[in-house]
Amino acid sequence: MSISVTKRSEDYAKWYTDVVLKAEMAEYGPVKGTMIIRPYGYAIWERIRDIADNFFKETGHVNAYFPMFIPESYMKREAEHVEGFAPECAIVTIGGGKPLEEPLYIRPTSETIIWASYKKWIRSYRDLPILINQWANIVRWEMRTRLFLRTTEFLWQEGHTAHATAAEAEEEAMRILEIYRQISEDYLAMPVLVGRKTESQKFAGAVHTYAIEAMMGDKKALQAGTSHYLGQNFAKAFDVTFLNKSNQLEYVYATSWGVSTRLIGGLIMAHGDDKGLILPPRVAPYQVVIVPIWKSDAEKSQINELVSKLTAGLKSEQIRFHYDHREQETPGWKFNQYEMKGVPIRLEVGPKDVAKNQVVLVRRDPTNDESAGRKQFIPADNAPAIIKNMLEEIQTNLFQRAHDFRDKNTLNAENYDQFKELIEAGSFIRVFWAGNGADEARIQEETKATIRVIPFEQKEKGTCFYTGKPADQIVIFARAY
Amino acid sequence: MSISVTKRSEDYAKWYTDVVLKAEMAEYGPVKGTMIIRPYGYAIWERIRDIADNFFKETGHVNAYFPMFIPESYMKREAEHVEGFAPECAIVTIGGGKPLEEPLYIRPTSETIIWASYKKWIRSYRDLPILINQWANIVRWEMRTRLFLRTTEFLWQEGHTAHATAAEAEEEAMRILEIYRQISEDYLAMPVLVGRKTESQKFAGAVHTYAIEAMMGDKKALQAGTSHYLGQNFAKAFDVTFLNKSNQLEYVYATSWGVSTRLIGGLIMAHGDDKGLILPPRVAPYQVVIVPIWKSDAEKSQINELVSKLTAGLKSEQIRFHYDHREQETPGWKFNQYEMKGVPIRLEVGPKDVAKNQVVLVRRDPTNDESAGRKQFIPADNAPAIIKNMLEEIQTNLFQRAHDFRDKNTLNAENYDQFKELIEAGSFIRVFWAGNGADEARIQEETKATIRVIPFEQKEKGTCFYTGKPADQIVIFARAY
Repeated sequence: MSISVTKRSEDYAKWYTDVVLKAEMAEYGPVKGTMIIRPYGYAIWERIRDIADNFFKETGHVNAYFPMFIPESYMKREAEHVEGFAPECAIVTIGGGKPLEEPLYIRPTSETIIWASYKKWIRSYRDLPILINQWANIVRWEMRTRLFLRTTEFLWQEGHTAHATAAEAEEEAMRILEIYRQISEDYLAMPVLVGRKTESQKFAGAVHTYAIEAMMGDKKALQAGTSHYLGQNFAKAFDVTFLNKSNQLEYVYATSWGVSTRLIGGLIMAHGDDKGLILPPRVAPYQVVIVPIWKSDAEKSQINELVSKLTAGLKSEQIRFHYDHREQETPGWKFNQYEMKGVPIRLEVGPKDVAKNQVVLVRRDPTNDESAGRKQFIPADNAPAIIKNMLEEIQTNLFQRAHDFRDKNTLNAENYDQFKELIEAGSFIRVFWAGNGADEARIQEETKATIRVIPFEQKEKGTCFYTGKPADQIVIFARAY
Repeated sequence: MSISVTKRSEDYAKWYTDVVLKAEMAEYGPVKGTMIIRPYGYAIWERIRDIADNFFKETGHVNAYFPMFIPESYMKREAEHVEGFAPECAIVTIGGGKPLEEPLYIRPTSETIIWASYKKWIRSYRDLPILINQWANIVRWEMRTRLFLRTTEFLWQEGHTAHATAAEAEEEAMRILEIYRQISEDYLAMPVLVGRKTESQKFAGAVHTYAIEAMMGDKKALQAGTSHYLGQNFAKAFDVTFLNKSNQLEYVYATSWGVSTRLIGGLIMAHGDDKGLILPPRVAPYQVVIVPIWKSDAEKSQINELVSKLTAGLKSEQIRFHYDHREQETPGWKFNQYEMKGVPIRLEVGPKDVAKNQVVLVRRDPTNDESAGRKQFIPADNAPAIIKNMLEEIQTNLFQRAHDFRDKNTLNAENYDQFKELIEAGSFIRVFWAGNGADEARIQEETKATIRVIPFEQKEKGTCFYTGKPADQIVIFARAY
């Protein structure tokens, strides 16, 4: 397989698929729209999962597992929910060689099956809150699929919480949104806008949907995580009441929230360049790759000796590394391969380096080969300490670069003509907004742009760019994945 | 919900279900045979998963994820495999609101879809071995289901490896079997017999199936894990060849292996008693529960002070604990509840204990309330160190007790009449065996007993208890889950 990818400027979509395939992250499965997550891609998912799982547990959540088969009758209980999800469901009609009496939906999300259980588990305020999360596979029948971004089956976590008051549930939805922001910004180095979705963009069955939205390398938006305040909608649909402290029966308040393997797609598009993936150190399966360069057995044993001291130091600094000493591949091929895979730091060790007790260090994050500091000679003895600091620097640098890129490409529009021009050129657009759902739909129809988010922070008042009415909020429009 | 369970001696099956439900491990889902794994049960699964995952990674395996939808045509490629699995599959026939052209099987195991990928990934011996594991949900349409033991959907790990030689693949199958033995014996405290399955009991598509078999509290056998040497069967079915070092095309050699949430069922039946679950400390979600006993606010604050020192000590010893200071439940109710949940050690702290700077320690493992050492008063300052040792002691004790129980209930049979008597009374039966598949089937038909395992260690020769022929192997018969 050739080790170069289509240039981003030539065809961004093709660049993306090239990178996913050539970095051996994932590939399509035999059934249309399904995805095989290869070990390198899955290792990133494991890191994201562990990071998120820690956040959830630290905030009092526990994991559980609910069946993936949902009886058709359950799906139909919440009117908006079934309307939103039923058309994209996969349905089992045969089991054990016989036609089933009731078709089974494979979960497109688990609110319905979980709220049927909550009905059994909740009697009084003493049983609340319930703070359950689930790691699971999900099926949504998609027509246009893209690896990681939109696949028929994907992996995610879905939190489903039950509360005694609306305020507590709203607080939970916001707490999770903040966790999602931290995962995106502090670990994936992917800056996000945080806010509320419009009515037309919210989850089917929610009162409010909150979201984090990131800008990709082509200036399109990616919804990277959502947290929903469900009010009493599912409690009413499944008749889940509790005796409150005043001994009155009341419907339970709910939230649900999720992030998925889609985050990996975001990671790729937020940082990647024409040489492939660039991974933030905190989620890189290995942060350092070591490539030896030897010609003779004598050189080999000297180099192995240096590397063995080096890796002991990396271990004690808890730096994740991979020593690739395969002899059937050339050093040059390996350099390309690990740049494609976005490994943050490459160390090269040859006979000259052994003589000087040094290693050659090459950073992945400068996208220009001539950048100062990209390639350095560092003393072998200090390498672990130097690398430890440099990994933090790379993490910060990637975030800052993505942040600057988003800021530079977030523009204001005063009127619809200007809006259309900017959208066509590509950017996030900040506008005053006083339109309604019909206006939103018309804009989407005409420009393919949608309101990605209504940011929480709102200070100014102005005039709606579309309706000309007085507006007390700014929204962010963009084309989106 | 009442906090007692059916006695094991009255109705073992009902005892089992009572324990699963009342310890809040799991319950049935709305679709027949499906299971909801509740947080307490799932926490045990998370521990088992992490333990197994570490073993796999330490031995060079990586995780990946393959789609759960398998095209019907793939299922049909390996003749024995489709015959074994197709009758118990769930089949998706509708997707996105439309009938599908090709029905999709939900994976009953993933050999077929994985070997279709391996065909693309393997060209030469340099691409081998592939050592991939997957954590996933699996569907097998079961008629008679039991929580954890046999459910329509369950969670498991499935390893699928590809090798250049038969010897290397056989070695891999044995390496994994040894890992399974360690997980069962060293973590679940569940002694297992290790050996090979007969032809009639092996995996559909395997050359050999190896297994670990445990004895449950009712003296029946539980197959707790299997490791298969698949030879070139799947390589041939999916035409997966590689260029070997002599530059010749050869079919790839394979293994597959798995353990599942069934292990939790084994755990329950290997150790539980008439008060409920008894958890080995190494897999207990929390190893210690602390129950305070106070009447006044003054007592409460004194107790909280002692407990806060105590828990700091437990933390520094890396002991997992839960402090249940809920005021709406009585201490007595909590005692019962945590005995039902099998928490290894309970600490009680009341005003008198504060005065003496002590805690009351109650061990869960003695099944007799009057056992010496079950209840002890220990100095609060030394509690963490004492508990740390005691947890190891409990772990060892549970294993030894189960081991003794199995040894006591493993009997020899000289002839078929004696065999039938022993089976009816309940036990594992060691016999010389020279029968064939038809003999095995007849014995199963007449006694419901099957050959659980042909132990690897074989020293003696004798006469087959059933056929009267000379036999060079001993096998273990039992009724099984």
